[in-house]
Amino acid sequence: MDYKTRIANLRKIMQKKSLDAVLISNFENQYYFSGLKAITYSRPILLLVTKDEMSIVLPTLEENHAKHKTDADYLYVYHEVEEKDGEHSYHAQVETLLKTINKGSHVGIEYNSLPTQITLMLKETGLDYINIEKEIVQMRAVKSEEEIKMIKESGKLVSHALKKSVENVKSGMSELEMDYFGNEYLFKEVSKTYPDSTFDYFVMSPSGLERTNTPHVFSNSRKVEDQDIIIHSRQVGLNGYRAECERTMFIGEPTEKQREVFNVMVEAQKAALDFIKVGVTAKEVNQRALDVIEEAGLQEYVVHRTGHGIGIGVHEEPSLRFDNDLKLEAGMVFCIEPGIYIPEVGGFRHSDTVVLEDDGTVLITEYPRDIESLIVR
Amino acid sequence: MDYKTRIANLRKIMQKKSLDAVLISNFENQYYFSGLKAITYSRPILLLVTKDEMSIVLPTLEENHAKHKTDADYLYVYHEVEEKDGEHSYHAQVETLLKTINKGSHVGIEYNSLPTQITLMLKETGLDYINIEKEIVQMRAVKSEEEIKMIKESGKLVSHALKKSVENVKSGMSELEMDYFGNEYLFKEVSKTYPDSTFDYFVMSPSGLERTNTPHVFSNSRKVEDQDIIIHSRQVGLNGYRAECERTMFIGEPTEKQREVFNVMVEAQKAALDFIKVGVTAKEVNQRALDVIEEAGLQEYVVHRTGHGIGIGVHEEPSLRFDNDLKLEAGMVFCIEPGIYIPEVGGFRHSDTVVLEDDGTVLITEYPRDIESLIVR
Repeated sequence: MDYKTRIANLRKIMQKKSLDAVLISNFENQYYFSGLKAITYSRPILLLVTKDEMSIVLPTLEENHAKHKTDADYLYVYHEVEEKDGEHSYHAQVETLLKTINKGSHVGIEYNSLPTQITLMLKETGLDYINIEKEIVQMRAVKSEEEIKMIKESGKLVSHALKKSVENVKSGMSELEMDYFGNEYLFKEVSKTYPDSTFDYFVMSPSGLERTNTPHVFSNSRKVEDQDIIIHSRQVGLNGYRAECERTMFIGEPTEKQREVFNVMVEAQKAALDFIKVGVTAKEVNQRALDVIEEAGLQEYVVHRTGHGIGIGVHEEPSLRFDNDLKLEAGMVFCIEPGIYIPEVGGFRHSDTVVLEDDGTVLITEYPRDIESLIVR
Repeated sequence: MDYKTRIANLRKIMQKKSLDAVLISNFENQYYFSGLKAITYSRPILLLVTKDEMSIVLPTLEENHAKHKTDADYLYVYHEVEEKDGEHSYHAQVETLLKTINKGSHVGIEYNSLPTQITLMLKETGLDYINIEKEIVQMRAVKSEEEIKMIKESGKLVSHALKKSVENVKSGMSELEMDYFGNEYLFKEVSKTYPDSTFDYFVMSPSGLERTNTPHVFSNSRKVEDQDIIIHSRQVGLNGYRAECERTMFIGEPTEKQREVFNVMVEAQKAALDFIKVGVTAKEVNQRALDVIEEAGLQEYVVHRTGHGIGIGVHEEPSLRFDNDLKLEAGMVFCIEPGIYIPEVGGFRHSDTVVLEDDGTVLITEYPRDIESLIVR
């Protein structure tokens, strides 16, 4: 990825806002600007960008990793072994780093991810801070060609993984076993097709009336039964860049009411997918799906927005939400997933990922969306 | 889990420290005190505990979930749909919640997880805050019988999953494919044996000289080769309670030097496992492993502590580190994992999970640790 351009763009924002430095604490943003993605952040990491330099505070465990993956000018390494030179604590190294910034400087921080502790240290060091979250969110919202290429590969992977799970589930199998078919495919396919690559995935398959009515719930060992409705939901991130695909399906014949609601959901998703393009606003896309649901009189069963951006983050801006006036641009990537959740009838949601280009949209996930293709008989 | 007792203990701390309320922002702590574990926190959640009540700020998507899983007295739900009653933003609901606390009150917060934004809101609302992270960490460090029961089940699961991966890996297979054998076992076994349960797992299998020298690195599609050294590392969390098991292994005959270092690592781990018990200090356990490594003249290749606590967190306190004077207590659970990382020779680390009881220790993970059992011929 082109980290140099990203840092250059960040420095333009710094200039515009008269900032001497930016502290990056959000893990996704750290990956975005530096290429460093740790496995666990129980040992914290902090990134500092100034006009000319980039520094990272990090544990010894990530030292080689950072040397290999990033262009950092300085690493402030904290240790866990008595004999090692240097500081043993994260906060001591953060303090050392903050002291390299001139007193009275203005530092950009992320208000919703920088922990209180570090902000208090900024104050003590005599530094002022302002929130630059919004500007970083805007940068990340428009993807580069290289990012879109990766997201498209994730689109293929997630579609095929979904297919494996959807086509193998049957009555008596647990939600976890359903998930496993697609997972198996991913471990094998990434190994075969993508050299020197890693991936992460998310999957959940709430089943039955009660569980599909909780839009987000971990798959568990509940056995799928005849007449169950299931929302099979997946994300795959190839080398950190994600795509999402979800399908609502049935074990055996759905009821008449379920057919009706299912078809409203499919039409709502189609309306938003047909409408979304460069130049329309986020809230218009949201409303297109809602229009279909409102016409069917089901609006009281809507509990979430029509969709969201995706990329390094599971959910990222722009949100396709009623209060978002943002005009959509080429390079943005969205998951379109209107949902309808009716107690005693079930939860209904498909999701597909779409890339906005100057001359149209590209749907990068695929699996049939019609009800007949999604009934296990 | 006995959330009532946990909240009662938190209230004792509040009384001792003259706190009127505690804000819990750390996700693990939220799960610990309330039973609510969300799948993604891209829609934030905040917990408030006062002398008599518990409140949660949360998105509509988690409303049913919270009603089902928690004893919260009040839910401050934020919405994403225009027509819904109430507030549409997280911060508006946090503001409403903070206004229920009397001005001038002292509120306990977690300095290393509460985002700056909320701390600034506390100040604006006229509330004082102090850090109560340390007290919560101490509570979590000593596990209840119920927690230990769950961790022991995770110990069985992670040991068997490791066995599947270690016994199936061979030259030409990718790191991801190696991981997959154990994963398959987990999805099937949890489905079969644990009703109404979920699990999460972590696995990585860095292979070869360079990758085993980076202690934490995501498995990727690199193909394992003859003469490779591999560190296969796993955690499983059954219903959120974790255990860890790791083994260093070889594809084909290790070199003489590798045998030497491997055996030092095994002896170091054994020394710490034999020594750890109620009443010794964390740093003494750390030093027992280091003594063995120092005697072999390999101390310069140590980059991390001997071990760490485990539970809801991947790594949690108490840390088995040179500067931790804490006396160990019954109910604490540790991963013992001294590591030696030598460029051009390889990275060497086993990990096992041990529970401290009044009358001894219980090793809850198992797989042979000797070199002959860990060579694929």
